Amino acid sequence: MDTIFYNGIIDTQDEAYPVCSAVAVKNGIITALGNDEEILPLKEKDTELIDLKGSFMVPGFTDSHMHFLFYAQEKGQIDLSGVKNFREAADLCSKYVESARENNRWIRAAGFNQDFWEEKEIPTRMDLDRIADDVPIVMRRTCHHITVCNSKALELAGLLSERKETSCREMGFYEDGTPNGVVREMTQNVISEAMPPLSDWELKELIQSAAKDAARQGITEVQTDDFALIPGDCGERILKIYREMAEQDQLDVRIYEQCSVETTDGLQRFLDNGHKTGESHGFFRVGPIKIIADGSLGAHTAAMTEPYLNEPSVTGVLNYTDEEMEQLVAMAHAHHLQTAIHCIGDDALRQAVLALRKAHLKNPQSDIRHGIVHCQIMNREQQNWFQKLNLIAYIQPVFLRYDMNIAEDCVGKQLAASSYNWRRFADLGVHLAGGSDCPVEKFDVLPNLEYAVTRTNPETGQSWFPENSLTVREALKAFTLEGAYASFSEGVRGTITIGKYADLTVMDRNLLEIPPEEIHNVKILLTMTGGKVTYREAI
Amino acid sequence: MDTIFYNGIIDTQDEAYPVCSAVAVKNGIITALGNDEEILPLKEKDTELIDLKGSFMVPGFTDSHMHFLFYAQEKGQIDLSGVKNFREAADLCSKYVESARENNRWIRAAGFNQDFWEEKEIPTRMDLDRIADDVPIVMRRTCHHITVCNSKALELAGLLSERKETSCREMGFYEDGTPNGVVREMTQNVISEAMPPLSDWELKELIQSAAKDAARQGITEVQTDDFALIPGDCGERILKIYREMAEQDQLDVRIYEQCSVETTDGLQRFLDNGHKTGESHGFFRVGPIKIIADGSLGAHTAAMTEPYLNEPSVTGVLNYTDEEMEQLVAMAHAHHLQTAIHCIGDDALRQAVLALRKAHLKNPQSDIRHGIVHCQIMNREQQNWFQKLNLIAYIQPVFLRYDMNIAEDCVGKQLAASSYNWRRFADLGVHLAGGSDCPVEKFDVLPNLEYAVTRTNPETGQSWFPENSLTVREALKAFTLEGAYASFSEGVRGTITIGKYADLTVMDRNLLEIPPEEIHNVKILLTMTGGKVTYREAI
Repeated sequence: MDTIFYNGIIDTQDEAYPVCSAVAVKNGIITALGNDEEILPLKEKDTELIDLKGSFMVPGFTDSHMHFLFYAQEKGQIDLSGVKNFREAADLCSKYVESARENNRWIRAAGFNQDFWEEKEIPTRMDLDRIADDVPIVMRRTCHHITVCNSKALELAGLLSERKETSCREMGFYEDGTPNGVVREMTQNVISEAMPPLSDWELKELIQSAAKDAARQGITEVQTDDFALIPGDCGERILKIYREMAEQDQLDVRIYEQCSVETTDGLQRFLDNGHKTGESHGFFRVGPIKIIADGSLGAHTAAMTEPYLNEPSVTGVLNYTDEEMEQLVAMAHAHHLQTAIHCIGDDALRQAVLALRKAHLKNPQSDIRHGIVHCQIMNREQQNWFQKLNLIAYIQPVFLRYDMNIAEDCVGKQLAASSYNWRRFADLGVHLAGGSDCPVEKFDVLPNLEYAVTRTNPETGQSWFPENSLTVREALKAFTLEGAYASFSEGVRGTITIGKYADLTVMDRNLLEIPPEEIHNVKILLTMTGGKVTYREAI
Repeated sequence: MDTIFYNGIIDTQDEAYPVCSAVAVKNGIITALGNDEEILPLKEKDTELIDLKGSFMVPGFTDSHMHFLFYAQEKGQIDLSGVKNFREAADLCSKYVESARENNRWIRAAGFNQDFWEEKEIPTRMDLDRIADDVPIVMRRTCHHITVCNSKALELAGLLSERKETSCREMGFYEDGTPNGVVREMTQNVISEAMPPLSDWELKELIQSAAKDAARQGITEVQTDDFALIPGDCGERILKIYREMAEQDQLDVRIYEQCSVETTDGLQRFLDNGHKTGESHGFFRVGPIKIIADGSLGAHTAAMTEPYLNEPSVTGVLNYTDEEMEQLVAMAHAHHLQTAIHCIGDDALRQAVLALRKAHLKNPQSDIRHGIVHCQIMNREQQNWFQKLNLIAYIQPVFLRYDMNIAEDCVGKQLAASSYNWRRFADLGVHLAGGSDCPVEKFDVLPNLEYAVTRTNPETGQSWFPENSLTVREALKAFTLEGAYASFSEGVRGTITIGKYADLTVMDRNLLEIPPEEIHNVKILLTMTGGKVTYREAI
């Protein structure tokens, strides 16, 4: 044996052997389960014995939807989330000026919120110029809707010459009509595109660091939509980077790429490049085609069948006509590509389901596992379609932290009650895969589990339709076995079973016995992925 | 759509959509489920509409262990099971004399039981010679332990010159010392080997006919151990015949071959020939390595840890030493071949489990699905090993018809109570795959389901440890989803789910609502395999 864990509470989530105290691992695979007396004698000379000291082990977590590279990229930014005023922010950035000047890089900072600053004011171009005016500097607000730039950054982005009277850009101006450095919404993309792209080497370093963070949260696989990070090359560079890292054993977490595609032309290039769902390079596999049907609830861009109650002129935005969506889905389906379709509003869901149903009827494919990502606003009839079409529901329980404050205002109490209704999904037997949508939310799994069960913000105590909750066991399944199902890996992952990969997560308390509202306080002690310890803390 | 079934009670066995009334099929795949109002509008010009008239549909049955080719071969024999005296048997055989003489074939008849004949006497060589003396004729008794031959058959087998005083053969003699034509036990093989082998063409005809019989019982896949039919070529000819039939779309039932191997040399040849578990040719796939660890309970050759209570000098027969079994299993396991090990006695089980455990520990393999075929005699601790090693239990509930009469005499009440204990297997969450072992028993699924639930012989009313019964739903699962699991096809078979193959079985009554003791009277009305109607009766 390579590793033997013993003296634990091992919740296998395999009904064929629900609980044991010890597990043996060799060559990355679970080889034996039992009590300590049965398993400890398997120790060989080089076996590492790990005393779980009564801690709680479950199958390694899977996050079924996030944007891992975006998270990784943000790791390359200066973190302003804790600073108390602009002075502190400036001091943090100052440390990087010399290195940025030498290496011809930008200084990128993110996460400030001036509401928590003493001065309560968003800084402007002149403030940032005082840190440096020959090196481009940008600071993004925590909301992602605002970026403040210094003059050099604006200049490189071609925005310094904009003037208040003539500009159609989403940006702010001083009283003299010159840009004040505050850039909003989509105009932020003009800034991003002006930045020198990260090299493969830089991206790999960031991914390795991000994977360590994921392992720290007990995560063993992320299903991630990354292609938008590098627009224009249909994801080829990202697929290559992940593939190289997998081949060189540099990934501490399994990656299942949700390949974002916007058009049938883009999909054709993806196919021409030889990719397909299931293409496997060890820890890196190519996953579904990701299609984005609509926007977000907060921005009122989620596409609704009825106008937003709090903005009656608006029904949100469909990114495709029904015909376009049908074409795109039909093409993916005909090539036996899994799809994962972002739908937040009920009209987006209607469109996606219509396209999926037609694809199924026209061109039957076996075991294709299409799904809807987010699937938030829906009535009961629309929820039934998940059952009828055997669709995966990719849910992000922690979204409730924010959405519980706005959903009823947007769609009214009745529709809100049948939205985010995971209880009924579970009762319908729908495959529920849990995820974080990180970096929109943190990918910390435990708070996400807690929201699934309590639907209560632990900071405010506010609960939202608690009758729509999952049980702890159901929530665990969403982040383990059902996550594995979503990536066609339930034969080798998702339960602790002999012959499955040793993807294991250990924590300090038994989730099934503590009050659910304490789940977010549970600590991850150890994570193993494919037999490799990727995180270990005090055990 | 190619086919729409409607107006039925469709028990999908998929918790995501348990019951509906209509299902649409296209290109062999289930494309839509729902009520009639939803599904009937999918009708196109060429769609075949099938009105189920309230009948009951379940996922197509899988028989997880039988000897399909042996059954098929017996189809080439004259059936004597209904005859009332030797005269009738002779008349039946007479019809084939001319054709056999012309084609240089043997006349083979089987299934007589002289206990039910008016004369109560086994016929002899001279009797058969009166049918024909220039054409070889054999008649096998229903028990398979006795074959009666005419002079020509004995002559061709080299047995006509045997004499009572000097022979060591298991055969009978007249008072004058010459053979009386009655050949017993293993000496029957001398007869079989003298017969001209069946040509590929003949075998294919028999397989097609046998597949029709299987379809008549609602069977859509058979997992079958056939290699012994043609000794000496490691199954190559059988694999070729099935492969050709699959490629030419001549199979009405899916075949998953349980490849019987006796030695590591034989296994090496199997590997050298390029075979492996999962090798797929459409309706024909190569399954596990079948290993036979011991004999049978009735013959007291099942290997026991304690002597037979009713024959204290005997503990049965292990076909291998522990070391030989370990080597064979380790070699299969190391090549990622699934194994299915025939174990009837508890000592055989001990040996197989030991070998499997060592193989797992020494050389971990992912998702390999080893199993034990028959797994009859065992104590509770031995039963636990199925759980711990994640072993499939291949059970044949209908075996109880006979075994309930002998098991307690062989092993005593206590061990009998923990043997054939499917209830506890189910409670342990063990994968239970149902089968018939046909032609040992008929492959009729419905009586087999009934035995699983009632453990009662419907003819005698005798019940045996009824507390060890499965529920109807569990029994159905054993012959559907768990059968599919055993052949790695649960992603595409075993439930009625969109995207799975259209393997469907329709019967005239709802198994879940009728008294279990009536299940054997239920009639199969229609069978569909991969979208093709393979049996249809009055619907």
